[in-house]
Amino acid sequence: MIWWATDATHDPARISWVDSANGHADFPIQNLPFGIFSPAGGAPRLGVAIGDCIVDLLACANADLLPKAVATACSGDTLNALMALPASARRALRHRLSDLLSDSAHAGRMKLHLHDAADCALHLPARIGDYTDFYVGIHHANNIGRQFRPDNPLLPNYKYVPIGYHGRASSVRPSGEPVRRPKGQRKPPEADAPLFGPSARLDYELELGVWIGAGNKLGDPIPITDAVDHIAGFCLLNDWSARDFQAWEYQPLGPFLAKNFQTTISPWVVTAEAMLPFRMAQPARPQGDPAPLPYLWDEADQRHGALALTLEVSILTAAMRQRGDAPHRLSSGPASNMYWTVHQIVTHHTSNGCNLNPGDLLGTGTISAPERGGYGSLMELSAGGREPLVLPGGETRTFLEDGDEIILKATAAAPGFAPIGFGDCRARIMPA
Amino acid sequence: MIWWATDATHDPARISWVDSANGHADFPIQNLPFGIFSPAGGAPRLGVAIGDCIVDLLACANADLLPKAVATACSGDTLNALMALPASARRALRHRLSDLLSDSAHAGRMKLHLHDAADCALHLPARIGDYTDFYVGIHHANNIGRQFRPDNPLLPNYKYVPIGYHGRASSVRPSGEPVRRPKGQRKPPEADAPLFGPSARLDYELELGVWIGAGNKLGDPIPITDAVDHIAGFCLLNDWSARDFQAWEYQPLGPFLAKNFQTTISPWVVTAEAMLPFRMAQPARPQGDPAPLPYLWDEADQRHGALALTLEVSILTAAMRQRGDAPHRLSSGPASNMYWTVHQIVTHHTSNGCNLNPGDLLGTGTISAPERGGYGSLMELSAGGREPLVLPGGETRTFLEDGDEIILKATAAAPGFAPIGFGDCRARIMPA
Repeated sequence: MIWWATDATHDPARISWVDSANGHADFPIQNLPFGIFSPAGGAPRLGVAIGDCIVDLLACANADLLPKAVATACSGDTLNALMALPASARRALRHRLSDLLSDSAHAGRMKLHLHDAADCALHLPARIGDYTDFYVGIHHANNIGRQFRPDNPLLPNYKYVPIGYHGRASSVRPSGEPVRRPKGQRKPPEADAPLFGPSARLDYELELGVWIGAGNKLGDPIPITDAVDHIAGFCLLNDWSARDFQAWEYQPLGPFLAKNFQTTISPWVVTAEAMLPFRMAQPARPQGDPAPLPYLWDEADQRHGALALTLEVSILTAAMRQRGDAPHRLSSGPASNMYWTVHQIVTHHTSNGCNLNPGDLLGTGTISAPERGGYGSLMELSAGGREPLVLPGGETRTFLEDGDEIILKATAAAPGFAPIGFGDCRARIMPA
Repeated sequence: MIWWATDATHDPARISWVDSANGHADFPIQNLPFGIFSPAGGAPRLGVAIGDCIVDLLACANADLLPKAVATACSGDTLNALMALPASARRALRHRLSDLLSDSAHAGRMKLHLHDAADCALHLPARIGDYTDFYVGIHHANNIGRQFRPDNPLLPNYKYVPIGYHGRASSVRPSGEPVRRPKGQRKPPEADAPLFGPSARLDYELELGVWIGAGNKLGDPIPITDAVDHIAGFCLLNDWSARDFQAWEYQPLGPFLAKNFQTTISPWVVTAEAMLPFRMAQPARPQGDPAPLPYLWDEADQRHGALALTLEVSILTAAMRQRGDAPHRLSSGPASNMYWTVHQIVTHHTSNGCNLNPGDLLGTGTISAPERGGYGSLMELSAGGREPLVLPGGETRTFLEDGDEIILKATAAAPGFAPIGFGDCRARIMPA
């Protein structure tokens, strides 16, 4: 198959007998993301979002409504087994679900397995074996680098190496779980010694999350031409960061306690299949930039490996919440501001033989646009805390205050296709 | 209980009816380490090493020989459930095993559950949720730092922060599994651009591994006075490192592909209980060093938190193997060359609320002695590759060659107690 070719499941004219799906900002029938949910009083299980409802996949499998090849992967309380299947099996499931949810002949029996999303709890979609965070948002790297090295913001390796580091899998949490402000060591510039206490420079980072599907064996790198077969889907990812801890601890081995107190993700896995209409060419490298080394170069990836996805961040402070205000948008920008494609990230990660497993999570790193309206962190928006933002209502922010809620959203759009969204990735800051 | 007090299971006069245990360098009856093994033709299960034999714990539990509170934790194919138990339950199991293996009245029925270790395969002892590597070997930090910054080898945070970073859990492998030489990017100083190919500066690192027992909830730090309750045991850990990749990739987010291609550990978990006789005072900080911040300070930890453990590294090259030579010892030194105790490491890791889980693995970082005979890596022994080592037989080494096998060992010893060992942590380098 040509991996960027669309099919009937992407037809923008296809509508669902689930009325709320038609025109839904996130979950029209063209999306069909997978997740783990609990209906009221029920145990966690696999589900698919459709409009304002969730289809119980386990119940569908038990009622013999799903392809045999995927039915056993639909039991359990994580998506790991489903993610481990070949893309062809996930595609067969997608086709079947698209038929079941569009053809009204199925409505009667399918309604038995449909839950109102408002009555359900959403969980982490997978048991995350390892979580790796990258740094491929080049404008973010430039903006942060400029604060430390005004004349030379990017280090010499940046345009050769998709820079990444290992994060903490145990503290990844789904949207909605509050974030306790962390305590830690920070050293104010004027102090002789560090202090221990609550972070005074708590920030968010707007990232795209990548879910690994089929894994690779230790010692067997994934060639760039095969990387697409190893990505199961995508989510939003907020890499909460204590900037004061980070500045003090990160030399020489990188961020640690500044990041690992919590990472928030959107709970729905928007599949690689659902994203096919939103493939686009990787933006050309600026004149003078080096070509990627051969192991990271694939022409199909350059033509189709980027994503036509708009990311945005909003804030809702305690005062705004009390006044009943809507969240205030802090920034918005395209995911194509990544210097490397998600496939280059996967190939680089495994180029030394490192093994990925189904359900592993990768973060892209903060995706900022070159202009201020698309900066993906407060560190950038407030120029390292020197230029407070003024919010509607007159409040100001350099970094996050207790009670602030940060909401990430993403919308994929392309001419001739129905736009799809990722659902919310949100969490509120609680006092230390 | 006073956590550093010994009991009858540590009595050096206690002997076993398993003859090979008495005087065994690693596994006398005073040790009783846990692991996961497969007998010939059998499935992986829990076991305890005793001399040259392994006790099948599952079989013992099924025969009602073990305390009820631990019996269910002895099923399955990982130690995670056993590690999750309170220390009191693990202690009860230790006492029972010590009785079963010393009192010859039990020999008859116990022999049914005993396997010859030579006939068994050893596996990873736990499903490792997260693996974190530290950098608390101060002489190693000094030696490496001096190669980059001769006048100022330690960064300003070193004596305040137990420096750590997240590693890769998926590529941790038990002793004996070969290591494929990784490929990756390296940039020779004279080159304009990086090359991609096999590492030319492959190294080992001699580390102590720490197994987490009971975990903590996200947001609930472990106070220093409680840290001892969260450590299940210890192992040896070889943090294989591609120095050429590391030099090029590690700025600004730390080591990644230079380390995550494989980490080798010794398969037996030497329990915190077995190590009680080998507790010692943390060596006093040199005059002028800052005191630890209060959250890292506990007097009992300072008096009893270090380990009287000698670590050593040997090499066996292909030529030595062909000649039938014994491995050649490269270095040896005490684990007390850690600037922070294992309890300070655990407390620091959770001080921001980060959650640890049973079966998580921590590495201490390379433990070098101040003098050359105790350097824990080739990077130090060969002065960054400038001073080749001459091996018996005339071969030289700056970094590892294909066919080289590295063997780590550890022995705990204290006056009035039987010494115990960790068993081997060994692996051979295979061509890229």
